[in-house]
Amino acid sequence: MNKTFISFNEIGYKRRMNTIFKNDENILVVGLDHGTSQGLLDGLEDISSKTNFYLEQNSDAILLGPKTSTIQKNKFHKDTSSSFWLRINRINAFDQFAPEMVVTSNIAEVEDAVILGADAVVAWYVRDLSCKHPFQNNEEELARLAKQCRKYGIPLVVEPVTVGNNDDEELINTSRIAYELGADILKITYPNTAKVLKTIVNSVDVPVLLAGGAAAENEDKLYDSLEEAIEIGVKGLVIGRNLWQSEDPLKAFNKLSNIVKKNERK
Amino acid sequence: MNKTFISFNEIGYKRRMNTIFKNDENILVVGLDHGTSQGLLDGLEDISSKTNFYLEQNSDAILLGPKTSTIQKNKFHKDTSSSFWLRINRINAFDQFAPEMVVTSNIAEVEDAVILGADAVVAWYVRDLSCKHPFQNNEEELARLAKQCRKYGIPLVVEPVTVGNNDDEELINTSRIAYELGADILKITYPNTAKVLKTIVNSVDVPVLLAGGAAAENEDKLYDSLEEAIEIGVKGLVIGRNLWQSEDPLKAFNKLSNIVKKNERK
Amino acid sequence: MNKTFISFNEIGYKRRMNTIFKNDENILVVGLDHGTSQGLLDGLEDISSKTNFYLEQNSDAILLGPKTSTIQKNKFHKDTSSSFWLRINRINAFDQFAPEMVVTSNIAEVEDAVILGADAVVAWYVRDLSCKHPFQNNEEELARLAKQCRKYGIPLVVEPVTVGNNDDEELINTSRIAYELGADILKITYPNTAKVLKTIVNSVDVPVLLAGGAAAENEDKLYDSLEEAIEIGVKGLVIGRNLWQSEDPLKAFNKLSNIVKKNERK
Amino acid sequence: MNKTFISFNEIGYKRRMNTIFKNDENILVVGLDHGTSQGLLDGLEDISSKTNFYLEQNSDAILLGPKTSTIQKNKFHKDTSSSFWLRINRINAFDQFAPEMVVTSNIAEVEDAVILGADAVVAWYVRDLSCKHPFQNNEEELARLAKQCRKYGIPLVVEPVTVGNNDDEELINTSRIAYELGADILKITYPNTAKVLKTIVNSVDVPVLLAGGAAAENEDKLYDSLEEAIEIGVKGLVIGRNLWQSEDPLKAFNKLSNIVKKNERK
Amino acid sequence: MNKTFISFNEIGYKRRMNTIFKNDENILVVGLDHGTSQGLLDGLEDISSKTNFYLEQNSDAILLGPKTSTIQKNKFHKDTSSSFWLRINRINAFDQFAPEMVVTSNIAEVEDAVILGADAVVAWYVRDLSCKHPFQNNEEELARLAKQCRKYGIPLVVEPVTVGNNDDEELINTSRIAYELGADILKITYPNTAKVLKTIVNSVDVPVLLAGGAAAENEDKLYDSLEEAIEIGVKGLVIGRNLWQSEDPLKAFNKLSNIVKKNERK
Repeated sequence: MNKTFISFNEIGYKRRMNTIFKNDENILVVGLDHGTSQGLLDGLEDISSKTNFYLEQNSDAILLGPKTSTIQKNKFHKDTSSSFWLRINRINAFDQFAPEMVVTSNIAEVEDAVILGADAVVAWYVRDLSCKHPFQNNEEELARLAKQCRKYGIPLVVEPVTVGNNDDEELINTSRIAYELGADILKITYPNTAKVLKTIVNSVDVPVLLAGGAAAENEDKLYDSLEEAIEIGVKGLVIGRNLWQSEDPLKAFNKLSNIVKKNERK
Repeated sequence: MNKTFISFNEIGYKRRMNTIFKNDENILVVGLDHGTSQGLLDGLEDISSKTNFYLEQNSDAILLGPKTSTIQKNKFHKDTSSSFWLRINRINAFDQFAPEMVVTSNIAEVEDAVILGADAVVAWYVRDLSCKHPFQNNEEELARLAKQCRKYGIPLVVEPVTVGNNDDEELINTSRIAYELGADILKITYPNTAKVLKTIVNSVDVPVLLAGGAAAENEDKLYDSLEEAIEIGVKGLVIGRNLWQSEDPLKAFNKLSNIVKKNERK
Repeated sequence: MNKTFISFNEIGYKRRMNTIFKNDENILVVGLDHGTSQGLLDGLEDISSKTNFYLEQNSDAILLGPKTSTIQKNKFHKDTSSSFWLRINRINAFDQFAPEMVVTSNIAEVEDAVILGADAVVAWYVRDLSCKHPFQNNEEELARLAKQCRKYGIPLVVEPVTVGNNDDEELINTSRIAYELGADILKITYPNTAKVLKTIVNSVDVPVLLAGGAAAENEDKLYDSLEEAIEIGVKGLVIGRNLWQSEDPLKAFNKLSNIVKKNERK
Repeated sequence: MNKTFISFNEIGYKRRMNTIFKNDENILVVGLDHGTSQGLLDGLEDISSKTNFYLEQNSDAILLGPKTSTIQKNKFHKDTSSSFWLRINRINAFDQFAPEMVVTSNIAEVEDAVILGADAVVAWYVRDLSCKHPFQNNEEELARLAKQCRKYGIPLVVEPVTVGNNDDEELINTSRIAYELGADILKITYPNTAKVLKTIVNSVDVPVLLAGGAAAENEDKLYDSLEEAIEIGVKGLVIGRNLWQSEDPLKAFNKLSNIVKKNERK
Repeated sequence: MNKTFISFNEIGYKRRMNTIFKNDENILVVGLDHGTSQGLLDGLEDISSKTNFYLEQNSDAILLGPKTSTIQKNKFHKDTSSSFWLRINRINAFDQFAPEMVVTSNIAEVEDAVILGADAVVAWYVRDLSCKHPFQNNEEELARLAKQCRKYGIPLVVEPVTVGNNDDEELINTSRIAYELGADILKITYPNTAKVLKTIVNSVDVPVLLAGGAAAENEDKLYDSLEEAIEIGVKGLVIGRNLWQSEDPLKAFNKLSNIVKKNERK
C-alpha cells in the first residue's frame, strides 16, 4: 500500500488559492481597506454600500479591514463569487507629514482571518534602505506572519515597499526578499520600467498582482500600464482609489475587468 | 433543517450593547474614572458617595477605574438600571508639565472587565502626528485591545486623541482609524466645527458619544454644543468634571439628561 | 434558595487583611528589606538575629527581601503573631551617585509571596514627573502587579515616590493614582505638611501607613510627626533605620509601639 | 541489568550528522539561499531548475531559504543523496549602502526545520566589536537557537561574522565563542592567513566548513585556498556565487568536488 | 500525627549543596568556561584533555560552558568526585576594546542545567554604577535566574561585578545585593582590602568563594591573598588562568588545594 501523507494545511492552502484564482484566471480585486491606514477617503464614507456594489459586480475579491469585515458579515453569502481578503497590518506612510520612520502595525492576527473565514491576508512589508532604523526588523515580522500563514494554510499577500531608495535593483531585490520570506502572492505598484516588472515576475515563483496606487490624473495611463503588466504575466489588479473615486465607477470596473480578464480594452 | 450557527461572543456583544443603549435611546454616562490619569480632582474625594448619587439618579452608565470598581462592588445591584463601564488604560497627558511624549498605560485587561461583569471597556487611543515617536505604535495596541474585546464579546469604547496636529482632516481621520481598528463606540470631544462632527458621525458605522471635556467656564456653551451634537446624530454624552464640579450637580444632571434624551433644555 | 457566590480570592484577601490589621488596630511594621536596594546598612549585618529580636517583640509585621525570607524560614512559627511581608521590587534611587533615571526592578513575583505564605507584598511605585522618561511606564507595571495580587487575593502595599516634582499637588495625585491602580495599603513618607497628609488619607479608601524614612538626627521629630499622623488617621508605621540604628532599639520600639497603638508617648 | 538511558534528541542528532557527513567524508554544500538576504542574484532567477541541477550532481547538501524549501518539496525524493539544510536567519549586511548596524532577522524557527524534515539549520552570528550596539546581544540569540536545536536534535550550522574588527585574534575568538555557545558545525570564510585557519580548526571540537564567499575574480585563488583548507582539516565547502555564477558551473562543481573529496585538483 | 511537609526543591537544593561542599569542607573549583566570554585563551585549546586532567586530580568542581558540557559528557562518571557547574551567562567586558556598556547574555537556561544533571549554575551580575544605563536592569535578570533556581532547587553561584565605581562601599553593597536577590554562593575577586573581604563574608549568609582572576605576574601574591581569604572565612577558590596557564599546572593545583583545604602552603 502506498498511501501518501496528506497535509491539512496544504489542502487548505490549495482550496483557498483555487477560490482566489478560479480556473487559474486573472483577477480583479477591489480594495476597500484604505481606512485602516489613511482614515477617511472620498468615496469610502459609506463602506457598506460600496461593498454591496462590488459584490454585485462579482469582483473577484474584496479587501477589507478588521472592523469593516465584521460590519459586512452577511454579504459574503453563498450567491457571491467574490473571495474575501483581510488586511492585517497598516502603515503610517500616508500621514499628513512625512514620519521619521515608516512603520507597520499589526491590526489583526492571521488567526482572525481564519475565524472570519477569509481566503487570504494582506500585509505591507517595508524594506528600509535609509540605513537609519535597522532595529525595526520588518523582515523578522514578515517571517512571523508567514509562519502563521503556513500554520493555518492561508495565503499571504505581501505588498513590498522600499524606503530611502527606489532604484530598479532595490525594487527587484525587495520583491524577491518578500518572496523568499514567505509571500504567496505579491502585490506591487508598477515599477520604474516594464523591464523591471518583467524581472520581478520572472524571479518569484508566485503570482504577482499590480496595485492600482494613488488616483491617477489620466485614467488611460493606468489602463496602458495594466495592459502591459498583464502582457508580462501579472495575474491581475488590486484597485481602490482609481476605481471608486472614478467619475463612472461601473464603467471603470468593467474596463479594468476586461483588461485583466481578456486583456481587451472596451 | 436550516439551523443558523450562533456565535457566543456575538450574543454577548449584543446583550451588552442592549444593556448600554436600552431601546436604542441616547445615553448619559457619568465618568468617575479621572483619578486613574489625573490623581485627585475636586469633587472626587469621596468616590463612594459620588457613585451612589449617580446610581440613584439612574444615570445610564457609570465609568470607573479598576480599584474604584472593586470598592463600589455592592452598588451595582439588581434595582439599578445603570450599566457599568471599566476604564482600562490611562494617559499621561494631564501631568502638570507637558510630557515629551504622550503615552497610555494599560491599567486593566479586558479579561478583568469580564470577571467584574462590566458592560463595556473604555480606552484612549493616541494618534501621534508629531512624527517623533513612530515606535510607540498605539495602533497595534488598539488592535490588541480590539482583539481581546472580540474574544469576549465586550464593547470597546475608544477615545481618539490627536497629538501634534488638530486639523479637521486629522480629527476625521483619527476617528475613522479608531473605528477601522475595532472601536464599537467612539467617545470624542466636540471637534473644531459642527461640520467636522457631522462628517465623523456619518463616516463610522458605530455610535458616537460626546465627551464633556474640561470644566467649562460657561455652562451654557456645553448645553449648546450638546444640543447641536444630538441633532447631528450623536448618541449621548460622557460627562465628568462639568457635572460633579457644577454648583448644582443635580440640576446639571437633569438638564443634561433632558437634552440627551429628548433634546429639550429644561 | 438565595445562596451567595463566594469568591475565593476575596476570602483570601480578607483573611490576610485581618492577619495584618488584627482587630482593626494600628500596626508597627519592622522593615528589614533595605539590602535589596541599598546593599549593606549599619545594623543589618546579621539579619537573622535582627529578625529574631523583632519577632520576640511581637512587632505586628516583618518586611523581608526574597533571599532573607528563606533564611528566616523557621522563625515564623505558630507562636508568633507577626505577619510577614515580602518586598517584591527594588529601586536604584539609593545608589551613591544620582542615577539618570529612577528605575524599579522586580525581585520576586507575587506568586513567590503566595508560595512563601507571605501576608502581603510591598512594591515601590515611581511617578516620574521629570517628563524625560515616559517610555518607562511604571503605571503599567503597577497595574500588572495589582492584577497578580487580585488573582491570588494578596494585599498590595504600595510606596509611591515622585521624581522631578514634590509639590503638594503632585504628592496627593501620586498617592491617589497608586490607589486607583490597585494599592490595598499605601506606605508614604510624611509629606510637606499635615494638611497634605490629611488630604491623602481622606482621598483614598484604603489604609495609609507612614514610612520611617532615613535616620533622623532628632528622634523626637519622628515621634512628633508620628503622633500627628496617627491623629490624622494613619493606620501605623513601617520603620527601619530609625529603629535598628537607634542607640537603644528596644526603647525605641516600645516608644513607637505606644504611639502607634495608643497614641501615647511613654 | 545495566540498561543505558537513550536520549531521543541525541539519536536524532547523530542520525542527522551521519546523513550530512556520510562515512565521515568531506562535503560539498551548494548554497541557494542568497535571496533571503540579498534579493535577486544573477544565476538564481530560476531557483527550481538550479536545485534540480545540483541534486542531479549529487551535491552533498543543498541550502535553501524557507519559501524556496516549500517550492522544491518534491525534489528531495528517495533517490537523492543530498541532505537538505534550512537557512533560518538573514543579515542586512548586503544592503546597497552600509547599514548603521548589522542585524540578523529570524526568518524561520528551528521547529520549521523539523517539520520540513531538514537535516540542519544555518544561522549567521554577528559579533559586533564596534562597541556601539551592545544592546543587540546576538550572543543571547545564538544561545536561544542552540537551545532549540538541542531540543529537537538538529545540527546548528553557524556562520560567525565580525563587525568593526577583523584582527586574527578576533576572528579566532569569534569562532570559538560561536562554538562555546552551541554551534555544531562552523561555516567560515577563509581568514587572514592559513595559520589563523589552523588555530580555529584546532580550537573547536566540531567540523569546520569553508564558505565560498563573494564571486572571486580569479577562480584559481579559490581552488588554492580550498586545497590549503582541506589540508588543514576543514571538512568541506559551502559554495554559492562562485559555483552558479561560474562560466561553466558543471566543470566548477566537479573541480571543487574533487578537491573537497580527495584533495586532488582535476 | 505531626508529619512535616517535605519540599522537593529544598531536598534537591540540599543534596546539591552537599555534593558541592562535601563534609562542609572548603573547595577548589577549576574554571574551564572562559571561552564563552573570551574566545580562545592559551591553555584551553584542547578543552577535552584539560577536563580529563582536572577530573583525575579530583578537583572539587569543574565549571564548563554549555557546548563544552556536552562534549565532556562521558567524563562525569561515577568514579569522579568532582561536582559539575554550568556557566549560564557571559559578559562582554573582555572584548578587545572597552564596550560602551557592559552586558551579560544568557547562554543557557537553568532548565538546561537540570537536564544536564549539573550541580550548580554560575552567573555574572553586573551592577552598573556609571548611572548611564539604568534601563539595563541586571537586578531584574538576576532575580529571574534566582526564581528559576528556586524552582528547580539548584544552587545559584553569582559573580558580582561593579562598573563605574569600585569603592569599598560599593563592592560591599554589590555583594550584599547579589545575596539579597538570591545568590546561594558568591564568587568574588579579592577586593581592595582584607577588611572589605571580611565585611562581605560577614554580611551575607551564604558561602563566599574567591575568584582567581587574571593571570598574576607573581604567583606568590595569589597564594598570599588566598591564605588571607581562607583565614577570613572564604570557603574556597574558583581558579582558571592562574592554574592552567601556570608553568607547572600540577604543582600549582596541589599548592592551591593545600591552601584551600588545610590552609598550608607546601
